[in-house]
Amino acid sequence: MFMFSDYNRVMSVYLHDIPLPEAKARLQSALEQADLWRVLGMENIPLDENAIGRVLAEPIWAKISSPHYHAAAMDGFAVRVHDTAGAQPSSPITLRIGPFDGVSPSGTSQGKPEACYIDTGDALPEGFDAVIPIENVESLDERGEVTPAIRHPISIRIRAAVTPWSHVRPLGEDIVQTQLVLPAGQVLRPVDLGAVAASGHQSVKVARKPRVAILPTGTELVPLGSDLKAGEILEYNSLVLAAQVKAWGGDPARFSITPDNFDAICARVKEAGRDHDLILLNAGSSAGAEDFSAQVVEKLGTLLVHGVAVRPGHPVILGTIDCGSLNLGNHPSSTVPIIGVPGYPVSAALTGEIFVEPLIAQWTGRHPQELPVEQAYLTRKITSPGGDDDYVRVAVGKVGDRLLAAPLARGAGIISSLVRADGLVLLPSGVQGAEAGDVVDVRLYRSRAELDRTIFCIGSHDMTLDLLAQFLAQHDRRLASANVGSQGGLIALKRGEAHLAGSHLLDPETGEYNLSYIRQYLSGVSVKVFGFVGREQGLMVRQGNPKGVKSLGDLRRPEVRFVNRQRGAGTRVLLDYQLSKMEIPVEAIHGYNLEEYTHLGVAAAVASGRADCGLGIPAAAQSLNLDFIPLFRETYQLIIPKIFAESDLLVPLFKVLNDHIFQQAVVNMPGYDIKQMGRQMAEV
Amino acid sequence: MFMFSDYNRVMSVYLHDIPLPEAKARLQSALEQADLWRVLGMENIPLDENAIGRVLAEPIWAKISSPHYHAAAMDGFAVRVHDTAGAQPSSPITLRIGPFDGVSPSGTSQGKPEACYIDTGDALPEGFDAVIPIENVESLDERGEVTPAIRHPISIRIRAAVTPWSHVRPLGEDIVQTQLVLPAGQVLRPVDLGAVAASGHQSVKVARKPRVAILPTGTELVPLGSDLKAGEILEYNSLVLAAQVKAWGGDPARFSITPDNFDAICARVKEAGRDHDLILLNAGSSAGAEDFSAQVVEKLGTLLVHGVAVRPGHPVILGTIDCGSLNLGNHPSSTVPIIGVPGYPVSAALTGEIFVEPLIAQWTGRHPQELPVEQAYLTRKITSPGGDDDYVRVAVGKVGDRLLAAPLARGAGIISSLVRADGLVLLPSGVQGAEAGDVVDVRLYRSRAELDRTIFCIGSHDMTLDLLAQFLAQHDRRLASANVGSQGGLIALKRGEAHLAGSHLLDPETGEYNLSYIRQYLSGVSVKVFGFVGREQGLMVRQGNPKGVKSLGDLRRPEVRFVNRQRGAGTRVLLDYQLSKMEIPVEAIHGYNLEEYTHLGVAAAVASGRADCGLGIPAAAQSLNLDFIPLFRETYQLIIPKIFAESDLLVPLFKVLNDHIFQQAVVNMPGYDIKQMGRQMAEV
Repeated sequence: MFMFSDYNRVMSVYLHDIPLPEAKARLQSALEQADLWRVLGMENIPLDENAIGRVLAEPIWAKISSPHYHAAAMDGFAVRVHDTAGAQPSSPITLRIGPFDGVSPSGTSQGKPEACYIDTGDALPEGFDAVIPIENVESLDERGEVTPAIRHPISIRIRAAVTPWSHVRPLGEDIVQTQLVLPAGQVLRPVDLGAVAASGHQSVKVARKPRVAILPTGTELVPLGSDLKAGEILEYNSLVLAAQVKAWGGDPARFSITPDNFDAICARVKEAGRDHDLILLNAGSSAGAEDFSAQVVEKLGTLLVHGVAVRPGHPVILGTIDCGSLNLGNHPSSTVPIIGVPGYPVSAALTGEIFVEPLIAQWTGRHPQELPVEQAYLTRKITSPGGDDDYVRVAVGKVGDRLLAAPLARGAGIISSLVRADGLVLLPSGVQGAEAGDVVDVRLYRSRAELDRTIFCIGSHDMTLDLLAQFLAQHDRRLASANVGSQGGLIALKRGEAHLAGSHLLDPETGEYNLSYIRQYLSGVSVKVFGFVGREQGLMVRQGNPKGVKSLGDLRRPEVRFVNRQRGAGTRVLLDYQLSKMEIPVEAIHGYNLEEYTHLGVAAAVASGRADCGLGIPAAAQSLNLDFIPLFRETYQLIIPKIFAESDLLVPLFKVLNDHIFQQAVVNMPGYDIKQMGRQMAEV
Repeated sequence: MFMFSDYNRVMSVYLHDIPLPEAKARLQSALEQADLWRVLGMENIPLDENAIGRVLAEPIWAKISSPHYHAAAMDGFAVRVHDTAGAQPSSPITLRIGPFDGVSPSGTSQGKPEACYIDTGDALPEGFDAVIPIENVESLDERGEVTPAIRHPISIRIRAAVTPWSHVRPLGEDIVQTQLVLPAGQVLRPVDLGAVAASGHQSVKVARKPRVAILPTGTELVPLGSDLKAGEILEYNSLVLAAQVKAWGGDPARFSITPDNFDAICARVKEAGRDHDLILLNAGSSAGAEDFSAQVVEKLGTLLVHGVAVRPGHPVILGTIDCGSLNLGNHPSSTVPIIGVPGYPVSAALTGEIFVEPLIAQWTGRHPQELPVEQAYLTRKITSPGGDDDYVRVAVGKVGDRLLAAPLARGAGIISSLVRADGLVLLPSGVQGAEAGDVVDVRLYRSRAELDRTIFCIGSHDMTLDLLAQFLAQHDRRLASANVGSQGGLIALKRGEAHLAGSHLLDPETGEYNLSYIRQYLSGVSVKVFGFVGREQGLMVRQGNPKGVKSLGDLRRPEVRFVNRQRGAGTRVLLDYQLSKMEIPVEAIHGYNLEEYTHLGVAAAVASGRADCGLGIPAAAQSLNLDFIPLFRETYQLIIPKIFAESDLLVPLFKVLNDHIFQQAVVNMPGYDIKQMGRQMAEV
C-alpha cells in the first residue's frame, strides 16, 4: 500500500515542499528580473513627529553647520584672550564693559569695550575669542565696588587668564556643513529628527510605504461580529496580516471576503494588482478541493513555489501576477508578487514573518528585523519531522541562573500559542527534534528584562491563576503558567524549571495533601508549602443533567461518556483514589482515556457534547454554563523552593496573596475558600 | 575668593540639584495626591490594524471558544470510531458514504451514512467522532473499485482503526470561552489582535493616549526653515520631544515659540493646561537672566524640584500647575504636571527618557521601556563629577570576542553624539569616572545583531569614509568610525579595539608610509596593509586668501592664525615633519595649540574666522567653499589585522574597495586618486 503517492498522482495540483532558502531565492530572482528587488520609490515628507519609523531613502548631508556661529556655552562675559593674559588671584585684571545688543558690540562713548555680557547661546561678538562664566568674575559698579547687578556691571574683575575659545561652542562643533548626518536606510528615531533639523533640513526623503493588498478567501469565512454557526470561521487572518504589514512599515489594505470561487478570486487578484505592490492571498494555498490559489497564480502569472519546507506554514505559494498596463499606482513594474498565505492562523502569522517582512525591508531599504537571540535549556523533548525548518513556539523564563524554554502547543490552529510565546526555537531541516535539557537558541519576542521579572509557575491548573496573573501584573510581575498537572509541577521544581508549582495531591494513606509527594519527588530540594485555595471538585454535566449522573458510580453506565484529565493531574489522582475506594475498574468507564489538560478543557468537552461528564471545579462548570454535582473538597497549595520563596522576584506574590481585594475576587468565584491563603503550612 | 556662593546669594532663584530617585519620588507623590498616578482613562477602539501599540486597559476574557465547534483538522472523511474497530491492513473495513451538505449529514435512501467527506475546518457532523485524512483511505466506486474521484466515492476502504477525536480540533482547543486571553497592560501586537478577534471581540478597551503639550520658549529661537542670523537658534527640541511622546504612546501637541517673557509664558502654560495632561516647557529651566520656567511654575502651581543630579540635563524642573476648573479635557484632575526641560538638545532628549517616558507608561498602564543591557569594555577613561548620575553616550562594537564601548563627545549641545550613540553608560552618583578597560553595563539602543555586523574603524579622518559607510550599508554592514588620528588608530588595533585603522603616517627617514609605525606600535599583531586613497594635503584659507598665505613659511607671520590637528593625527605628523625640514619652530606659529579632530573641523574653524588657515585635504576645503593651496601628496592606507582581514565581517569591505562605482565616487571628490585602492601593499 502506498496511498500517498496514489493520492499525489490523482491530484491535479499538489504542493511540493522545497527548502526555505531556495524558495526565497526564487522569489528574489523573479523580483530582480522585474526590477523590483530594491527600494520601490521615495517621497518627500515634512520633518515632523510622523516621520519616526520611516526609512531614509537618501543620506542626509548637512546643509548648515550647527552651531552656525560661535556661541557662548555659558552665561558670562565675552572677552579677548590677550586682554586676560597675566591675571592671577593676587593680581586681578579689570575689564571695561561695553553695551551689547545681543548680536554685535557697538562702540561706546567710553571707547571699545573689553568685555560684553552674553547669555548662553548668544553669538560671540566679532573680535572676541572666549567667554568667562558669570560665576568666575566679580561685577563692579562705577566706584569699582562689587555690585549685585551681576549682569550689568560697569566693569568686571577677573583673577585668571583664559585660554582661546574657552566656554565657546565654535561653529560646527556639533555638525559641520556637508558632513554625513544620517545614512540612507536609517529608520528615523526621535533624536535623528533633531539632527536632521539641526543640519538645516525641513523635510526628508523616505522610502514610500509598500502597498499590500490582503485578500481573505473562503466560503466558510465570516466577518468579525457575525452570529456564528458550526462550520463558519471568523476571518481574522487579514487583521493579523494587516497589523504586521503596518508594524513593518507597509500600507495594508484589507479586502472583503471572497468565496471559494476560482473566477471570483481571479477577479479580486486582478483588481488588487492594479494599485498594490504585493498581494497576500489567504488562504486556499493548500491542495484541498477548494484551494484555488495555485491555479489562480498559474492563470494570472507565474507560480514560482508551491510548498516550502517550513513548519508550521508549509503550504505557502510564491508567485507573480502580470498586470500588464493595468497597474495604476507607482509600482515600478507590471509584475506584482503574490504570496499564497496558509489559512491556519499560526501558519499565516509565521508566513508574514518569514516572507513578507524581509520583502517590505527590501522595498524600504532597511535591514530586516532581528529578534535578539539567547541560549536556553529546553524543558521537554521536541520531535520534528526533520525535513522541515521547524519553528517551535516556546515560553521562556529565567529560573535561578538558567534561561528555560518550554515548548508550547504545536498546532497551527492555536493562535493563543503565538500570543503566549516568548520566543521561537528553530529546528532546522535535517535536525530531528531536540531533547529535554538541550541548549537551544531562542529568538526572543520579549526583552530580557521582561523575562527577568517573569514568575514561572508549572503544575496544576486552577482558574484563579488567571486572576493571580492580573494582580501580579500590577506589581511588575508577569506570571507564566503551564498546566502539566500537580505531579508534573513537582517534577519541574525538582529539575529547577519553575519558581513554584500549584499542587493538590491527596495522599490516600494520610488524607494529607502534597507532603508525601513532595518527599517523594523533591528529595534534596528545600521547599515551603503555602496555602492557596480550598475548592470543590465534582462532576460537570450539561444543563439539566440529561444522563442523570449523580456520582462516580454512574460512570459505569455504558451510555455515560466521561472525559478525563491527563496522567499526573491532581484531579486524576483524586479520581483514581475515589474509584479504587468504590472498587470501580477504570476499564468500565467509557472515555477514561480521553484526556484534557485543564478544567476548562474538560468543561468544553462536556459543553460541546464530546463527553457527558467530567471531574473538575465549579468555576469551570459555571464558565460554560454547565451543571455541577459537588462531590469532594480539596486543598490546593503552592509549593515553592525556599530559595525562590525568599527571593525578590516572589515578594509581590505574597503581597497579592495577602491582599483582601484579591482574596475577595477569589471568593467571588464559585466553590473556593481562602482560609489558608498566603499562610505557610509546612517547610520540607 | 568663593565667588560661586556669592553668585548663589545674589540670584533670586537658583537650582539646587537633588538625587534622581528623590526627584522622581516627589513627582510621584504629588501625582498620587492628585489621583494622577494611574491609567488616565480608557477608550473603546475598533479591532483593526491601528490598535497595534495601544495598551489594554482591561483584560480580555474570551466571549466565545475557538474553535466554537468540533472542526475537521484535515481534508478527509468523518467516521464513527466504533465502525473502524478491527480494521487492519490485511482485513480492511469498508464504510458507506452519505451525502453531506457541509454542516450536517442527512439520511439517504441507502440509510444512515457511515462516513462523510469533510474539508479542513468543516464542522464534524453530529454523531461522528473522528476524521480519517483523505490520503489514508481508498475511495471506491459503485463496483467497489478504487476511483480517482477521491472526494466523491460511494464507499471508502480503511485498513486501520482510528482513535476517538483523531484529526479533529475539538471545540475550545485554542481558546475556551471565559478564559483569560490577554492581561490588562498588554501592548497589543499583531498576533494579539488575532487572539482577541478569535475570542469573539470586535473592539478593545485601551488606555487613552496622554495629551502632552510641548511649549518651546526663547527669544533666540526661530522655526525650522528660517534664514539664520548669528545668535538665532533653530527650534527643534519640540520636534524631538513630540516624536518621543508619540513613540511612547502619547499624543503630542507642539505649540509655537513663545519669547522669553514671563507673562507670555504664563499665559501659554495656562492655555496648555486647559486640555493637556502634561506640559513640557522648553527651555528656561536653568537660572539665567531669561530663565523664567521656575518662576512660572511657582506662580501657577507648585515647584516640586528645580535641579536634578543627572548629567547631562541637571537643570530640570518638576512641578504641577493648578488649572482650577479650567481643564476642559477628560484629564481627571485640575492639577496638571509640568516639566521644565533643559534647552541643550542632548539634555532635552535625556529628560524625555528619564522623566516623560515613565510617566506615559504609568498613565497608559504599561511597563516603562527597557533597553537591553550588555557588558562592554570601555575604550578610554571617563571622568565624572561624582555627584551626578552621569549618562555617557557610547559607540558600541564587537571586535573579536569583546564588546567595546567608546565614549562619544560629552557636550550637551552635541545632538550628533546622540545620533551616533549605540548605547548609554550610566556612571551613578558616587562613582567618579571609569578607567579604560573597565567593564561597564551599556544600555543598548541597537540590537546585538546590528552590533555584530558593525565594522569598527578607528584612526585617521578622511572624507571618503562617509562614502564608504554609505556603500557598506548596501552590503549589510555598518561602519562606525572614530577619528582619533593615525597613531591613535594603530594603538586601538594593538589593544584589539578596532577592526581596521585608516593611517597616513610618513616615515621621514624612509619616505615610506605607515610600515615603520606599524612595527613600532603593533608588535605581535599580524596585519595586512591595503591601499585606500592617495590624496593632496595643503592649506585651507578663506576665499580670496585674504592673508596671502602661500606656504608653511607664512605660518610664522604674526597676523596669520593657524588651526592645528590633534596630536597623533597623520596630518600633524606631516606638518611637524615639514616644519622641521624648513626649520620653523612650532612656537613661532600662532594657533599651533588650537586643535581640531577632523579635516572638516579645521575647515569650519577657517570658514568661521576662528583661524586664517589650517592644513588639510581639498575635499574639506571644497565642502565649506574655502580656497586650497596644494602642498603635498600622501598615501592613506587601511591597516587591518590579519584575523579581521580574513573574516566574513570584512568581505563586503573588499567588495566595495573593488567596486568601480565606489572608486568613481571617490575620484569625483577633489584631490583623490585610487591607484592603490583595494590592493594589498604589505603584510607585517
